[in-house]
Amino acid sequence: MTKAAPLSDFSRLCIHTITTKGWELEEAVDRYAEAGVSGVTVWRQWLEGRNPSESGDRIRAAGLEVTSLCRGGFYPALEEKSRKEAIEDNKRAIEDAAALGAPLVVLVCGAVPGQSLTESRKQITDGIAATLPLAESLAVKLAIEPLHPMYADDRSAINTLASANDACDALNHPLVGIAFDVYHLWWDPDLEEQTKRAAQAERIFAYHVCDWMTPTGDLLNDRGLMGEGCIDLRGIRAIVEENGFRGMIEVEVFSDRWWDRPPGELLEAIKEAYLQHT
Amino acid sequence: MTKAAPLSDFSRLCIHTITTKGWELEEAVDRYAEAGVSGVTVWRQWLEGRNPSESGDRIRAAGLEVTSLCRGGFYPALEEKSRKEAIEDNKRAIEDAAALGAPLVVLVCGAVPGQSLTESRKQITDGIAATLPLAESLAVKLAIEPLHPMYADDRSAINTLASANDACDALNHPLVGIAFDVYHLWWDPDLEEQTKRAAQAERIFAYHVCDWMTPTGDLLNDRGLMGEGCIDLRGIRAIVEENGFRGMIEVEVFSDRWWDRPPGELLEAIKEAYLQHT
Repeated sequence: MTKAAPLSDFSRLCIHTITTKGWELEEAVDRYAEAGVSGVTVWRQWLEGRNPSESGDRIRAAGLEVTSLCRGGFYPALEEKSRKEAIEDNKRAIEDAAALGAPLVVLVCGAVPGQSLTESRKQITDGIAATLPLAESLAVKLAIEPLHPMYADDRSAINTLASANDACDALNHPLVGIAFDVYHLWWDPDLEEQTKRAAQAERIFAYHVCDWMTPTGDLLNDRGLMGEGCIDLRGIRAIVEENGFRGMIEVEVFSDRWWDRPPGELLEAIKEAYLQHT
Repeated sequence: MTKAAPLSDFSRLCIHTITTKGWELEEAVDRYAEAGVSGVTVWRQWLEGRNPSESGDRIRAAGLEVTSLCRGGFYPALEEKSRKEAIEDNKRAIEDAAALGAPLVVLVCGAVPGQSLTESRKQITDGIAATLPLAESLAVKLAIEPLHPMYADDRSAINTLASANDACDALNHPLVGIAFDVYHLWWDPDLEEQTKRAAQAERIFAYHVCDWMTPTGDLLNDRGLMGEGCIDLRGIRAIVEENGFRGMIEVEVFSDRWWDRPPGELLEAIKEAYLQHT
């Protein structure tokens, strides 16, 4: 497999606020800026009690790009009332993204234990479709993030790049694309073919990195920093870049192990891992 | 989705010895027989210090069928020496299966963290091929068990039914087929299509059941008993049975929660879950 050349500067380095969980938005932004990071993906919890428009200005004033707002989604539900509430919540996310100046909302699409994945996928595309007029009017893109199959019970019924491509085809809208996360997709034997399909449709909107730990002690919060695990990061980056992706490389690490340490240490480790292993 | 009719007796009920981990082989066999269970899949640890041929006779004398020997596999390795050792170990498993009177060895195929899954898959088919002459001479079948993608780091590079079908196509031998485990495959959007493909090639050799817990607290040992989780067991059984499968339904549950309780309680719970939910 072809390997991408090492990254030599931080012009494409973006960090998700949840990665440095101990920092509030302002501290994260200042520290990222000092460290030479170029972009930030803001998790919605980091906007609580804040004016999104002012937060966006604050981020840009620090010299950072707002890469995306994370996350909308969770459309499926057994009751119609809950599905409608999910749509309203997604509209708020789109409005917040527009105010923040984030070009994109990342979607963790949702699933309901015991409801068929086919039905959940239908509720997902229906839910996204219901928010498209607002997304159009505010020019905000929506990125379906296929999630690892170990999250098919209650987090997402879209578990492969092929399924994400299918959902995008069904919606057939230039504002609907894919957030490609190596953690969720690294194992997929169809990765190259489906990346090509996504790229041809110009729908790879985001690229998230971290690593898969062996052993993985927790399904949610035991991700590794790049290089700590087994994912062929440069092999996968070669695939997306051969297919034209040139966007931000977003570090999204959920890790109790790292969260127990000072965020400043993690930030230094991210910079090193980014140059050495990503 | 079509649902299979409830099972009304235990004529197809098989239990894996690891499910009732607290019992040695003899006790497991006696208790299964008393409970009306029809088959047993023997894990290799349960043969330690025993003569497999005598163990097979003991099982049959109790009125049970030996459904399979679990497990061979783990072919990939960085060093050729280790790959050769794995092949020798798999030959011993095939010999033990023949002595035990098990028609089948289940294969957990293996993976090496950091080695490409493509390379591991090649080492898997090479490893299986190296044992085929012995399997032929002893008339023992080999069943590739595709494992959930969360095990792609170090347990199996074959993570979908499609990949298992591809490996079987590559080996193209009537003794090589698939062990279909709902835990590993339930989430797969291609399940129906790939089951049909497997059935047309007459390669569905085994069918394992349990359930997927929400939340799942541990990647290895937090499986549910049928009905405790979100897997559409009757929907999936309908798919394999519409495609002609009529073999044993094997209960394979790894669960610290259940293992903390007396195996006799679990056995009663299995019987109920088998009739109510499988």
